[in-house]
Amino acid sequence: MDLNADLGEGFGVWRLGDDDAMLDVVTSANVACGFHAGDPAGLARICRAAAVRGVRIGAQVGYRDLAGFGRRFIDVTAEDLEADVVYQIGALQALAHAAGTAVSYVKPHGALYNTIVDHTEQAGAVAAAVHAVDSALPVLGLAGSAFFAAATGLGLRTVPEAFADRAYTPDGTLVARREPDAVLNDADVIAERVVAMVTTGRVTASDGTDLVISAESVCVHGDSPGAVAIAEAVRDALTASGVILRAFT
Amino acid sequence: MDLNADLGEGFGVWRLGDDDAMLDVVTSANVACGFHAGDPAGLARICRAAAVRGVRIGAQVGYRDLAGFGRRFIDVTAEDLEADVVYQIGALQALAHAAGTAVSYVKPHGALYNTIVDHTEQAGAVAAAVHAVDSALPVLGLAGSAFFAAATGLGLRTVPEAFADRAYTPDGTLVARREPDAVLNDADVIAERVVAMVTTGRVTASDGTDLVISAESVCVHGDSPGAVAIAEAVRDALTASGVILRAFT
Amino acid sequence: MDLNADLGEGFGVWRLGDDDAMLDVVTSANVACGFHAGDPAGLARICRAAAVRGVRIGAQVGYRDLAGFGRRFIDVTAEDLEADVVYQIGALQALAHAAGTAVSYVKPHGALYNTIVDHTEQAGAVAAAVHAVDSALPVLGLAGSAFFAAATGLGLRTVPEAFADRAYTPDGTLVARREPDAVLNDADVIAERVVAMVTTGRVTASDGTDLVISAESVCVHGDSPGAVAIAEAVRDALTASGVILRAFT
Amino acid sequence: MDLNADLGEGFGVWRLGDDDAMLDVVTSANVACGFHAGDPAGLARICRAAAVRGVRIGAQVGYRDLAGFGRRFIDVTAEDLEADVVYQIGALQALAHAAGTAVSYVKPHGALYNTIVDHTEQAGAVAAAVHAVDSALPVLGLAGSAFFAAATGLGLRTVPEAFADRAYTPDGTLVARREPDAVLNDADVIAERVVAMVTTGRVTASDGTDLVISAESVCVHGDSPGAVAIAEAVRDALTASGVILRAFT
Repeated sequence: MDLNADLGEGFGVWRLGDDDAMLDVVTSANVACGFHAGDPAGLARICRAAAVRGVRIGAQVGYRDLAGFGRRFIDVTAEDLEADVVYQIGALQALAHAAGTAVSYVKPHGALYNTIVDHTEQAGAVAAAVHAVDSALPVLGLAGSAFFAAATGLGLRTVPEAFADRAYTPDGTLVARREPDAVLNDADVIAERVVAMVTTGRVTASDGTDLVISAESVCVHGDSPGAVAIAEAVRDALTASGVILRAFT
Repeated sequence: MDLNADLGEGFGVWRLGDDDAMLDVVTSANVACGFHAGDPAGLARICRAAAVRGVRIGAQVGYRDLAGFGRRFIDVTAEDLEADVVYQIGALQALAHAAGTAVSYVKPHGALYNTIVDHTEQAGAVAAAVHAVDSALPVLGLAGSAFFAAATGLGLRTVPEAFADRAYTPDGTLVARREPDAVLNDADVIAERVVAMVTTGRVTASDGTDLVISAESVCVHGDSPGAVAIAEAVRDALTASGVILRAFT
Repeated sequence: MDLNADLGEGFGVWRLGDDDAMLDVVTSANVACGFHAGDPAGLARICRAAAVRGVRIGAQVGYRDLAGFGRRFIDVTAEDLEADVVYQIGALQALAHAAGTAVSYVKPHGALYNTIVDHTEQAGAVAAAVHAVDSALPVLGLAGSAFFAAATGLGLRTVPEAFADRAYTPDGTLVARREPDAVLNDADVIAERVVAMVTTGRVTASDGTDLVISAESVCVHGDSPGAVAIAEAVRDALTASGVILRAFT
Repeated sequence: MDLNADLGEGFGVWRLGDDDAMLDVVTSANVACGFHAGDPAGLARICRAAAVRGVRIGAQVGYRDLAGFGRRFIDVTAEDLEADVVYQIGALQALAHAAGTAVSYVKPHGALYNTIVDHTEQAGAVAAAVHAVDSALPVLGLAGSAFFAAATGLGLRTVPEAFADRAYTPDGTLVARREPDAVLNDADVIAERVVAMVTTGRVTASDGTDLVISAESVCVHGDSPGAVAIAEAVRDALTASGVILRAFT
């Protein structure tokens, strides 16, 4: 099983989360690409740190919105979005290459991630961008999304992920962040839940429904309070259950 | 002989110069990379237009300064500058690749170009960035510059250029733009001068001194009034003199 | 009757439209504030040019989106939007004050203008921002919009405008730009239409319906091909019809 | 005696320092204006928090350089810089006004602060900008600087400051940050030193020289490790010595 987290999400003097500690836990690092976060020198450092630890790098592409951290939907045209995503992936590829490693997958960030669950035009643009850069690049995202449909249509490999600390609705989507209990905070509860997901392929939805979940990667968050402790708890619990943690490729 | 010009230097709705007309004239297009100019969708279009015409693409890297169009010196550290340049080259590489072509060389823009004539630290950073991305990428610039020294030290190929419309000082550098007569405006005078440069390897400096000049490319400007007419006059005069125009590689 | 146009919409080296020519035609200049367009030095110049000609200045506030020229909806929160608008108005106020003039009204730009026709949350945020800066500042916009409702609720003066070169639907809104015949291009037709609007208070909708229109200002565009000629035709036709052109206050 | 610190220096999701804690210590808050740091909503919050506590607000103006946090010299023209500073002050004035308070002084930030110690052209531009916005606004800065000379020439009040945690050279300037011992870190040492500065008007330079220092404000830093503890130690030591802390106006 793969463990992924968002990293490299500072900008200039500003830092977000403890990238070094998270790199000691995860097997895949979703590294920002400069549009929602990430100045080139900071991204170069995270690429080098990932390379040293053998952590795989993914391009975490987002809307051009530093002020909003890529968390705000932008009604960008497909043409602009496709070029924006190509640009971001290429920029990170060069930084990764300079660090002796490579970009191995693409994962959309924030509002873009959420939008392309059902916005077919933007979903198609992101998939087309990945395909245009390298048709061998897998995409990491949500099973059943418009994004995965578009990516599959272009022959891209899709890698579904589960969320360690988010509640699920009965139909398998995430409970919206604005709802109470949308986000789990207890490290032990989260760790136990992830072990169940991974070993049984099932998770309990917010209303008690038993859901089948099929994930090749588990997403842990790197920027919330206690993020490192939660990620470590998840890793340790999985390892203790006999699950081998390794990058999904 | 190669003919190069700066292209793709608009941003969003804003255009600068007539890119399509210039692409019909030059053999090498120095395409902006988003830091001093160039939004991704606009850069994608210029890459496709260059690919269609068989015009070679170079990465025109600059300071991160849209408001100043990269024309203002920024005292950026070597670490930041190297990463900024790697980022820009990679971004354009991906856009060029998506357009079915490739980035074939690197040329610094504006204040960065001028700064690394003698700023050894920034010169070294730009050279290191090019080398880190692809040690086979030539750099286009000023013979005798600190940038060329650094590039040569890293084993990069250096391609010296001459300027079609700029006056030279007796020691072979350019007359500063703020001086009178620094920039030539008459298309016929410019064309005749370029033919002399290319066929005799000599140019007359501002004080009448006869200078030896060794260039593998001639830079024409794309954004000044009458830019296209001047570029066409240079091309036609060179062709009429029996000079074959082709990209320098 | 007031004649307004969007001005100051360049950025750094990039220009859009012929600001000086338009300033000779309009009575109110909607000056960009730096978020969708407008670098401070360029805005300072337009403020000085407007002051010299006695043209009144309005703050043309927009989404923070240089790459998209403020033409893309951004799902920004009310708190962020209100602060963004306050910031923009204040910035232009200081530039106008330094030029010996003042900001006399506020007009939203592009996607923000269109969004707050019916997006009550963002409409409320823009109105609250204007009110927070100066409750005596009128707002220029679309009669019947959520924005005008919110502004009226806060006691702001609302100034409805008509569009010189846009087709109207039978219910009085604008035909979407993507529709054929949404934008009128013939200067004579436009001028005649504006004279009819202003002198009879009626305009013919796209389906032939006769609409009542109540406007205190007519918007002419400054950035389309032939913009200056159209604006001059409108001005001349209004003047020839005995309409006095002056700022609405 | 006045105690000032840089605040509001986050951007979007990114925070820097503990603004709320610092607001409980200082009497003057140098609030960022969006060019080197500070998104409008964050600046609005800090203005409201300062207003509640009766802390006076200054406009901390800087170069347009979010990626470099305004710490890199930019060779901007006087015309551009003056407009950039007017823009920033005006933006913060509007946010402060909306928060029920006002901008009471101007203090340049980072590389701009350092540059205008002796760069007469940029110093003149900043002074001219302040004067253009409001000739009654005092400027906070370094005694003997080109900036103070320019400001005095325009009739602006200049308020000299001393630095709590920086070593001084024998000629009264600051020891460059790259030198060892340029920055003091021990809260007790710093507090004792500030009390000596304030009560005796003297400070010991890095080589042991006894310097006369005349300051109307003491600058404490808000973003270094232990910043709050140091600021509190300075405040408490000054209070214990009978010094009344209040804004300088």
